[in-house]
Amino acid sequence: MRPFIFVNLAMSADGKISTVQRRQVKISGKKDFERVDIIKADSDAIIVGIGTVLADNPSLTVKSSELKSKRIKNGKEENPIRVVIDSKARTPADSDILHKGDGQRIIAVSKKAEQEKIELLNEYADIVVTGEDKVDLSALMEALYEYGVRKIMVEGGGSLIESLFKENLVDEIYTCVGNVIIGGKNAPTPADGEGFLKEEDFPNLKLLDIEKIDEGILIRWKVVRD
Amino acid sequence: MRPFIFVNLAMSADGKISTVQRRQVKISGKKDFERVDIIKADSDAIIVGIGTVLADNPSLTVKSSELKSKRIKNGKEENPIRVVIDSKARTPADSDILHKGDGQRIIAVSKKAEQEKIELLNEYADIVVTGEDKVDLSALMEALYEYGVRKIMVEGGGSLIESLFKENLVDEIYTCVGNVIIGGKNAPTPADGEGFLKEEDFPNLKLLDIEKIDEGILIRWKVVRD
Ligand SMILES: NC(=O)c1ccc[n+]([C@@H]2O[C@H](COP(=O)([O-])OP(=O)(O)OC[C@H]3O[C@@H](n4cnc5c(N)ncnc54)[C@H](OP(=O)(O)O)[C@@H]3O)[C@@H](O)[C@H]2O)c1
Ligand SMILES: NC(=O)c1ccc[n+]([C@@H]2O[C@H](COP(=O)([O-])OP(=O)(O)OC[C@H]3O[C@@H](n4cnc5c(N)ncnc54)[C@H](OP(=O)(O)O)[C@@H]3O)[C@@H](O)[C@H]2O)c1
Repeated sequence: MRPFIFVNLAMSADGKISTVQRRQVKISGKKDFERVDIIKADSDAIIVGIGTVLADNPSLTVKSSELKSKRIKNGKEENPIRVVIDSKARTPADSDILHKGDGQRIIAVSKKAEQEKIELLNEYADIVVTGEDKVDLSALMEALYEYGVRKIMVEGGGSLIESLFKENLVDEIYTCVGNVIIGGKNAPTPADGEGFLKEEDFPNLKLLDIEKIDEGILIRWKVVRD
Repeated sequence: MRPFIFVNLAMSADGKISTVQRRQVKISGKKDFERVDIIKADSDAIIVGIGTVLADNPSLTVKSSELKSKRIKNGKEENPIRVVIDSKARTPADSDILHKGDGQRIIAVSKKAEQEKIELLNEYADIVVTGEDKVDLSALMEALYEYGVRKIMVEGGGSLIESLFKENLVDEIYTCVGNVIIGGKNAPTPADGEGFLKEEDFPNLKLLDIEKIDEGILIRWKVVRD
């Protein structure tokens, strides 16, 4: 038993999610921003990798006050549970994700994380320990299900997403393709890591929908299971 | 004065044009294959980088016999001029591009290319020398215009395409987004190289058209000049 898991990303027309220097850049526009806020408010948890926390220091809060009120009216917290995938508990204690906005936080660590770091982060967040060296993503998803989480939005980055695909933990992907070229063989992409080597191992997708959004395109894919 | 230059690529849903091992893989389907054959037959020259020749050994010929006959009926050769961007004249003398199908070939080299290698390749192809270390792409495009070339299709790979963007030599891009995830931080993407670092330097695109094709999407972008 695990939650429904979808990935949401903005990528350039050449498949980059930021620059080679990992600078956060504008890829999509206002309409996409609003769309993301809606699907975020509709999720029970929002997940990012520690790479994204260190690069962008995102707060991952719901932005619209209407959407926040609606969540509260429905007996939820203002924001979905914010989860960082962070084997060695490297999340900075002053990061925005731990301080901005109401709501629960979880730092998902592995057995490699030092007790001291765990204790510090535990002031602001629940700590879930899975895996020896790296977070065991399947075990974590089961733990999140126990927390009552039924729908998860994954915001990135590419290393985490590739691992989720490897462990068959992605159900849908929404990609907003922006009208820019970023380039760079070392720029982050929607799925980094070691990648898949053989055609028969490639995760297969079914196109659910395409639409124009801002100056780009929104593509929705469903992951096909055999 | 330079020809109209468009890029045509097949990429995975996560922005890869082959695997980390640079194996050529099926990304698009039959309809896209036919579409590419049509736009290829409609071009005066087709360009690839030496990286693609070494990885895939493509022949770059027009496949449909109808399209070939049509070209001949219109007083053209069976295939567009096939051009390899190859500073050091590394194109193997037995590569398919030099032997399969009728039509002219050009190996675009720089001054770094050894005379011996040039002479060998000159048996099968015209040699155009531009640039000191690397092919000077702008000078090459002018030279191709002198050859009578007015429309160029660029087939890749990512290193060549990124250089073309850097030198403002791309007019349109057609991307067929296939329904697979390939992954891999070292897998080739539509624009590799050093990339663009600042938002104000990103090449800007205008969306011309999107349509479903095979199990994926065909996106057509126009490069916006300020
Ligand atoms: N455009 C967008 O929509 C968007 C969205 C998000 C991020 N981004 C960009 O993506 C970049 C960051 O991506 P990233 O790939 O460097 O980092 P990431 O995917 O956010 O985080 C990767 C890290 O997660 C940790 N991790 C723990 N367990 C893991 C497991 N089982 N599998 C995979 N990772 C695990 C690893 O570090 P430890 O082992 O040390 O824990 C790993 O290095 C930034 O440049 C950011 O701007 C863009
Ligand atoms: N899916 C698709 O549609 C598609 C299409 C084509 C290729 N591909 C894939 O792309 C990969 C190959 O891409 P790649 O990036 O390695 O190679 P590439 O772009 O085909 O060729 C790059 C090489 O061109 C030469 N070059 C000469 N002058 C240049 C200049 N001014 N700017 C840039 N390059 C210049 C350089 O080598 P020298 O300096 O030694 O000459 C450079 O290493 C393969 O894995 C192939 O399968 C996929």
